[in-house]
Amino acid sequence: MEYRYGTAVSPGIAIGPALVLDTEGVRIPNKLVPADQVDAEVVRLRGALDDAASEAREKRQRYTARFEPAIGNIFAAQQSAFEDPSFRDRLEHLIRTQTYSAEYAVSRGIREQVKKLEEAQRKVGDLAASEVLRRRAGDLIDLEKQILSTLLGQVPNAVAPLGGDRVVILANDLMPSDTADFSPRTVWAFATESGGPTSHTAILAGALEIPAVVGVGRFLTDVSGGDMIIVDGNEGKIILDPDEETVRKYEAKRIAALNRADRYDALRGKPAVTHDGVAIRLLGNIELAPEAAHCADRGAEGVGLYRTEFLYLNKSSDPTEAEHYDAYRAVIDEIGANRPVVIRTLDLGADKFSSVSGLLSVEKNPFLGLRSVRLCLRKVDLFRTQLRAILRAAAHGDIRIMFPMISTLGELRQCKTLLNEVKEDLDEAGVPYKADIPVGTMIEVPSAAILADVLAREVDFFSVGTNDLIQYTLAADRNNEHVAHLYDPADPAVLRLIRTVVEAAGKAGIDVNVCGEMSGEPLYTPLLIGLGLRSLSATPRKIPEIKRVIRQLSVAEAETVAGQALSMDTARQVQNLLRDQLRRILPEAVE
Amino acid sequence: MEYRYGTAVSPGIAIGPALVLDTEGVRIPNKLVPADQVDAEVVRLRGALDDAASEAREKRQRYTARFEPAIGNIFAAQQSAFEDPSFRDRLEHLIRTQTYSAEYAVSRGIREQVKKLEEAQRKVGDLAASEVLRRRAGDLIDLEKQILSTLLGQVPNAVAPLGGDRVVILANDLMPSDTADFSPRTVWAFATESGGPTSHTAILAGALEIPAVVGVGRFLTDVSGGDMIIVDGNEGKIILDPDEETVRKYEAKRIAALNRADRYDALRGKPAVTHDGVAIRLLGNIELAPEAAHCADRGAEGVGLYRTEFLYLNKSSDPTEAEHYDAYRAVIDEIGANRPVVIRTLDLGADKFSSVSGLLSVEKNPFLGLRSVRLCLRKVDLFRTQLRAILRAAAHGDIRIMFPMISTLGELRQCKTLLNEVKEDLDEAGVPYKADIPVGTMIEVPSAAILADVLAREVDFFSVGTNDLIQYTLAADRNNEHVAHLYDPADPAVLRLIRTVVEAAGKAGIDVNVCGEMSGEPLYTPLLIGLGLRSLSATPRKIPEIKRVIRQLSVAEAETVAGQALSMDTARQVQNLLRDQLRRILPEAVE
Repeated sequence: MEYRYGTAVSPGIAIGPALVLDTEGVRIPNKLVPADQVDAEVVRLRGALDDAASEAREKRQRYTARFEPAIGNIFAAQQSAFEDPSFRDRLEHLIRTQTYSAEYAVSRGIREQVKKLEEAQRKVGDLAASEVLRRRAGDLIDLEKQILSTLLGQVPNAVAPLGGDRVVILANDLMPSDTADFSPRTVWAFATESGGPTSHTAILAGALEIPAVVGVGRFLTDVSGGDMIIVDGNEGKIILDPDEETVRKYEAKRIAALNRADRYDALRGKPAVTHDGVAIRLLGNIELAPEAAHCADRGAEGVGLYRTEFLYLNKSSDPTEAEHYDAYRAVIDEIGANRPVVIRTLDLGADKFSSVSGLLSVEKNPFLGLRSVRLCLRKVDLFRTQLRAILRAAAHGDIRIMFPMISTLGELRQCKTLLNEVKEDLDEAGVPYKADIPVGTMIEVPSAAILADVLAREVDFFSVGTNDLIQYTLAADRNNEHVAHLYDPADPAVLRLIRTVVEAAGKAGIDVNVCGEMSGEPLYTPLLIGLGLRSLSATPRKIPEIKRVIRQLSVAEAETVAGQALSMDTARQVQNLLRDQLRRILPEAVE
Repeated sequence: MEYRYGTAVSPGIAIGPALVLDTEGVRIPNKLVPADQVDAEVVRLRGALDDAASEAREKRQRYTARFEPAIGNIFAAQQSAFEDPSFRDRLEHLIRTQTYSAEYAVSRGIREQVKKLEEAQRKVGDLAASEVLRRRAGDLIDLEKQILSTLLGQVPNAVAPLGGDRVVILANDLMPSDTADFSPRTVWAFATESGGPTSHTAILAGALEIPAVVGVGRFLTDVSGGDMIIVDGNEGKIILDPDEETVRKYEAKRIAALNRADRYDALRGKPAVTHDGVAIRLLGNIELAPEAAHCADRGAEGVGLYRTEFLYLNKSSDPTEAEHYDAYRAVIDEIGANRPVVIRTLDLGADKFSSVSGLLSVEKNPFLGLRSVRLCLRKVDLFRTQLRAILRAAAHGDIRIMFPMISTLGELRQCKTLLNEVKEDLDEAGVPYKADIPVGTMIEVPSAAILADVLAREVDFFSVGTNDLIQYTLAADRNNEHVAHLYDPADPAVLRLIRTVVEAAGKAGIDVNVCGEMSGEPLYTPLLIGLGLRSLSATPRKIPEIKRVIRQLSVAEAETVAGQALSMDTARQVQNLLRDQLRRILPEAVE
């Protein structure tokens, strides 16, 4: 039994068998086999190694023919590795003595070796030697992947449940492409080595309402698929190979938490109106069409942020216009034609990579790189396809379009020009669509916040993306634990920027919403309302709690809090003020 | 002959033999040997290969003893590679048929193979196979390094001239640790595969007044040390293996440029005063102590930005307090005790990496990570050493201290607390120092600019670091060519932030300076003066030109320009305005 600690990003407790996802995302179904299947398992292993060896032989021949023998011969080393008797003996020994499944024996056997290499790598003083060892570890992990995929005959990234068992997903980091099929029916919990509170993993876990711990640091070489794991998403803890007593203790905690979960359900039908009668529009942030149902369930008035990356990411090719269109129609069907649905156009790049469309590129600072709308303005065909689908779907519901990561007026104008061109194409083709679709922009780059008065003249609404706005304003990567102390929504500079945006929207008479993680935290609700916001969009799970705060609050109180916060010099002072305030309104939400 | 294109970052033309620097920075002195030395050269090669093989054998034994045979045996592959008869024959053949030096044969022979691997890597559709090839290319580059360092018996990174020949430095990117010994006496020019106009390479090239082209893209596998190269730092072009006529043409251009170089020399003794009598303080940005002399030569009143990273970066261990102190005293000696010297404390991290002090860490977005003062506040001992040295040196001149990358008031206060603790230590030890040293902060993170009024209450001066401020405000990595269109000093959001900072400084009655690349561009001089700046710090080479603009300008005109610029919506409009303005003042500076 071993404890590891990380950042709790989605609450709850889960206990289940591990599924280790690496970049190839191979799943190991069972750790052990019954004693009488051991011989059969050894036969499976031998078969898989033989197949892997022939594949390597075939690659050798193919690359020799295509390039030259010096290149083909590189794969001879792979072939020898698969044929190496001592390697085979070691894996067979694991099956026979431990009744491991062939898959588990391969993973365990190779990962032990990788771990030794990694340790040696850290200890050798010689940089060149350390690099040699690193490359050999890479070779070993490749061997593991190849044997496993031969054993499993499996498509990479297939996480569909085998035998119906739910799993705990373990990974270095989860990319949207890994997670598109995840659901609470197949996944107990996530735990990742990297990532912070606003990483993709964290947002997804929140959306799916699955417990998750991120930023645990290296632990994957200590686990193999099928190992029992406990994830404590309340305290940011994972337990590898727990003993029986620990499992019992956590199982009891899990049941108790489930019993508390419905606490806020009574609020569902009540309006989000402050104590002094000001209505606040609460909207939901969603990633997947079926989540639109969560919004309605939790009492949201609509979808304030529909992230569309999933459409692109679980695919080997770009999604068609029909696929876009069907997804958008599905959201309208879930939530109803009268409720607003704000579709954010493709926000790929940075931590949301895609291997489609040749979008994958290596940048030294991807958060400051070719991401989001910047990428769309380069890959115009892909952008047009999405715009067409949005315009067409908008004929059937209250769909609005929102451009992310706008940094300059020039970019916004380019987007609008493109949108108009697409409208003209639809006109010419006689395809029905909504011509007067509301157009908005995210405010998430400091330059956009500073120039909000200029941008406000050209859009119908703003939505402040606090996650990015905070990280750029403070120059602190929101996924980097080393600068987590600087990334703070309560930073006075962030508050001043939000105020600037709200004032600009007010002067221009356009709507303004907040849709970052900040608007899903009850701590910040009084502050945001006090800063003048009348629309907040959050993870559906958070909406009842936010509504409860709103109903306890008066706008006058909120304005006092915001005024005090704006006069403060440090985030710490603001945090203390907000905590005191929340303690008065909603004591159970604080600590 | 082959042309390659990149970004021109430091003007001038250079023609000379290539020195290819990779991470190990090995130098190849000669490409060819006389025909009668061919046999001797083959003997040298064999000796080096034998030595490298024994070294690999020794590593194998050592790591077997220290770890286990499976790890030691990894180096058996290296040993066989050095002993491989066909590999040896191939290299010997190059020496005998081409009269290559042993070093050049090794580099050429291996790089040709690496290039084939890289091509195959791009072509194979199979990701796993492509990774295998990538790792093998890494192995080959390691072999090259090992043979070369055996042949040369050379310390890595030693770029001291051999036989007095100046070289053209080629690299993927230049890190400060590679460049600390560079000087115009040893280096003709730089050309790098990566980097942008404000990368370290660009800044250094400007400081040393050496022609440079960056962001050329992959070309190092097409060049070996000793190949003739032309670098055209005016047009952003490099020419590999130029023919004789091209060499003649460029040699003529080079001479003509030298003749034009002294154009502004007459201005040296004249004051930097506007047409209507307002004095502007011009200061120099330096990286190396001897550059302080350039400041005085070019008519700067002092040093506005003394970057201290070099002290840390050319070392295998942290510099001692004495080394810091000596460097600071050297600057005072160069420039005189009465001229201000603003020392910026350690700004390591991001693109300025160090392998000392365990500072090297892998971050996904290093520009948004643990860099600069954030790192100093973690590595407090290292920071204290520098602060002690600065305080002591300040007893002998007009030294001022400046903290970089301050994002919050909390960080600034931590720095000041540490400075006070160091003063107390010096008091207790009875060491002389300057107690009332002026303390300033860089304003280069948007949060610092937005909260300038708060920060102004706690420092004696501000210096606006436009390079970082622009990149964070627009969320555009200044070294990433894909977002170069967004990185624009004329962006209205940037101008508003600068105005905020100048106003805050004015209200608090403290000095404010600009020390990014922006203040070294004559195009922005009227704008900055119009925004209220009365102090500008730039690369010494730029000072005469800036002075000339100032002397042609009235403050009223400058204020009109700034007012117009602030009312504009896009960087493009502002750029056009500034170009028109400069065309009136200094026609020869525009196009």
